[in-house]
Amino acid sequence: MLIFDLKGVFIKKRKSFKTEIKMKHNFGAGPSNLPQEVYKEASQAILNLNDTGLSVLEISHRSKEFDEIIIEAERLVRELLHVPRAYSVLFLQGGASTQFAMAPLNLLPKDGYATYLDTGAWSTKAVKQAEKIGETKILASSSDRNYSYIPKDFEIPSDASYFHYTSNNTIFGTEVFETPKSSIPVVVDMSSDIFSREIEVSDFDLIYAGAQKNLGPAGMTLVIINDDILGKSGNIIPSMLDYQAHIKAGSRYNTPPVFSIYTSMLTLRWLKQKGGVQVIEKENIVKARTLYEEIERNTLFKATADVTDRSRMNVTFVMENGDLEAEFLEFAKKREIVGIKGHRSVGGFRASIYNSIGIQSVNALVDAMQEFEEQKTK
Amino acid sequence: MLIFDLKGVFIKKRKSFKTEIKMKHNFGAGPSNLPQEVYKEASQAILNLNDTGLSVLEISHRSKEFDEIIIEAERLVRELLHVPRAYSVLFLQGGASTQFAMAPLNLLPKDGYATYLDTGAWSTKAVKQAEKIGETKILASSSDRNYSYIPKDFEIPSDASYFHYTSNNTIFGTEVFETPKSSIPVVVDMSSDIFSREIEVSDFDLIYAGAQKNLGPAGMTLVIINDDILGKSGNIIPSMLDYQAHIKAGSRYNTPPVFSIYTSMLTLRWLKQKGGVQVIEKENIVKARTLYEEIERNTLFKATADVTDRSRMNVTFVMENGDLEAEFLEFAKKREIVGIKGHRSVGGFRASIYNSIGIQSVNALVDAMQEFEEQKTK
Repeated sequence: MLIFDLKGVFIKKRKSFKTEIKMKHNFGAGPSNLPQEVYKEASQAILNLNDTGLSVLEISHRSKEFDEIIIEAERLVRELLHVPRAYSVLFLQGGASTQFAMAPLNLLPKDGYATYLDTGAWSTKAVKQAEKIGETKILASSSDRNYSYIPKDFEIPSDASYFHYTSNNTIFGTEVFETPKSSIPVVVDMSSDIFSREIEVSDFDLIYAGAQKNLGPAGMTLVIINDDILGKSGNIIPSMLDYQAHIKAGSRYNTPPVFSIYTSMLTLRWLKQKGGVQVIEKENIVKARTLYEEIERNTLFKATADVTDRSRMNVTFVMENGDLEAEFLEFAKKREIVGIKGHRSVGGFRASIYNSIGIQSVNALVDAMQEFEEQKTK
Repeated sequence: MLIFDLKGVFIKKRKSFKTEIKMKHNFGAGPSNLPQEVYKEASQAILNLNDTGLSVLEISHRSKEFDEIIIEAERLVRELLHVPRAYSVLFLQGGASTQFAMAPLNLLPKDGYATYLDTGAWSTKAVKQAEKIGETKILASSSDRNYSYIPKDFEIPSDASYFHYTSNNTIFGTEVFETPKSSIPVVVDMSSDIFSREIEVSDFDLIYAGAQKNLGPAGMTLVIINDDILGKSGNIIPSMLDYQAHIKAGSRYNTPPVFSIYTSMLTLRWLKQKGGVQVIEKENIVKARTLYEEIERNTLFKATADVTDRSRMNVTFVMENGDLEAEFLEFAKKREIVGIKGHRSVGGFRASIYNSIGIQSVNALVDAMQEFEEQKTK
């Protein structure tokens, strides 16, 4: 039980319910940090959703309560990204990995072929699933330099069924800022940068994004799709992998992940209150610049990705002297900085600075890097 | 902010965080009520998981914290159901509807055929997905009497690839208490009665269950599978629908629904603390008997399912005079009894009395039925 004095000032912590808020700087790549306001409201809704006397975990997906939640979630997605009317907005299960199969199942006919841009581990996984379903061509790849850049020298053939790419590569810290020009449907995996910057939805025909970065808890996938491209593959598709089945049922073909949709809706509300995507994009630019500038300045660290293609969401960097990396990890941890260990395919560090990571967390990391440099070079 | 005096006594509720607990009798068919203890702990973990300083929503699925959660969840499933060692336990996304496709994709070869028992809407949906993948035969159906009973007069052919049935029919209020004898692999959809009664896991080769009844929040599916039956279909399977991919990755082929798995683990802990499946089965028998006896006794109500096949989880009943049904719904609602409206294919009422619905809720419903009868017949 929490003990407060009458001004609500915290006096003493007892054993049961604690409402104090965690204080770590979590730079994890995902599932990642969500805004504190979202945690508070989601935590409350598990006990009692909007004074309904019911937990958000026990409301029916056919109830008035859930109607309101999913309608607001869809409305916010449409508003924040300016989604054209002809596009459907879906909240599905399975993650981007399920989308890797759904895209070709729905869009790749037997006599067609799909084209992919290979920018790292997630692109490669998407290609592998497409190859199970039909002919698949890789148009360009940056595997020659460990995916440290985005290939730009390629052309999308006009006779292919669709073109697929990953807009942000969490592992390698690269991001595609310019949408490739295409006369065929464009499919994009935006799992790790959706809602972080303004996009023109009509440049794409299928956008999908696992929720667990800028949107909500793991277990939900946002899909934004141009209905016109569907129904042409001729493939026999299990209903759960059929976009048309989900569109027809308004994301309720079966029981949807109610809590994930609810929490995502809260995050979208938070984003809107902040001023929307335009405002968060500016913050994200400042956060990324602050961190990359320190990496450039600091004699101990160096960035791994090419300057032009550096991700604003996942900042990857290593140390000039790799022997110091374990020590810096510990040094940072003492300052409540966690989740910065790099993926094994790049090594070093990765600071994921998604929407809900504040500049104060970036500053804490920069301070740690500076103090560590001071300690090591004095 | 909550205001407490120094003894922790609640003084005055302000606008922000409320820790009081909801009090409705929720008989909804699912997503359904979970134990209050689970709500409390899940609510707390969203703010701060076990004093890690992190929300359960932001921990990595590769972290030590999540390792502990998923290991405990699996251990509890194995312990509570006495799962044989040769079986894998998986926590997947997508719901039973995804399993409707996964079962035939993994188990039905081109030259084989699958057999199904048709006991209602969910069986029918399972059949439809299997038909997309291969030859499918319905061995018996109770559609002739609106699925008010379980067909028993059928034989499972020994040359079929597998036999599939739904152990509990939420919509029609019937349940299969005796596992059909079979020489071929048995696949069962136990979404709405798993953990409600003792089963012999080795009677089955594939058990699947959407979490949102007796286990946890919507968005997770429990799969218990005999590994020996896999890898023989010859089908090309998207990895996310391939049991072997999930087994190999220990349910972490991609980012799993962390919060759903965590909350399910809490519910399993609660069940273990109660004494396990044996104890809850006894409670469930008493709850179901109490309600069915009142339905039999009460002159206004009648049950819809045959006596021998009546579900212990979903009690379906109608009124002798259908015109009174809307009035009784309102009458019950005033007593904080919600979620009892029957599915449109049966009409009347359905009281879902899953594990976490206490006998006091059943008694509240029985009291309401008795008072209503008194009011109407005096």
